[in-house]
Amino acid sequence: MKARVTVTLKKGVLDPQGKAIHGALSTLGFDGVEGVRQGKLIEIELDETNRDDARRKVEAMCEKLLANTVIENYAIDLV
Amino acid sequence: MKARVTVTLKKGVLDPQGKAIHGALSTLGFDGVEGVRQGKLIEIELDETNRDDARRKVEAMCEKLLANTVIENYAIDLV
Repeated sequence: MKARVTVTLKKGVLDPQGKAIHGALSTLGFDGVEGVRQGKLIEIELDETNRDDARRKVEAMCEKLLANTVIENYAIDLV
Repeated sequence: MKARVTVTLKKGVLDPQGKAIHGALSTLGFDGVEGVRQGKLIEIELDETNRDDARRKVEAMCEKLLANTVIENYAIDLV
């Protein structure tokens, strides 16, 4: 089973990487962009077949390693 | 309108960041992980209201800046 984890910065947390992309887009002539936020996407291939077990496992991974829950949110999609 | 762009490494392209996560998960005692790939998630807030125009614009951004199409794939979701 495959899990797609998206990790995004919480609202209000400064995102210099997003700001840099925003600036670069402006420089390239893309206007009409109001904001850019960058996050992470982590795809995990698991040998788990039970969806509930897989979700629990990936949640534990997020809490322990993949996301810094002080400043980041995470979302898990099982594919 | 908001666009979510996911940029992932193409199949066969080495992913040292994914390998590092995989190693860290093993060290933390998470077994049953068969593979980890890391990608990027970019959320763009556009002042465009037409979906087709928005998609065209974001596609151009991906080709020019957001993705290195030699080694990366991108996918666009309009929210």
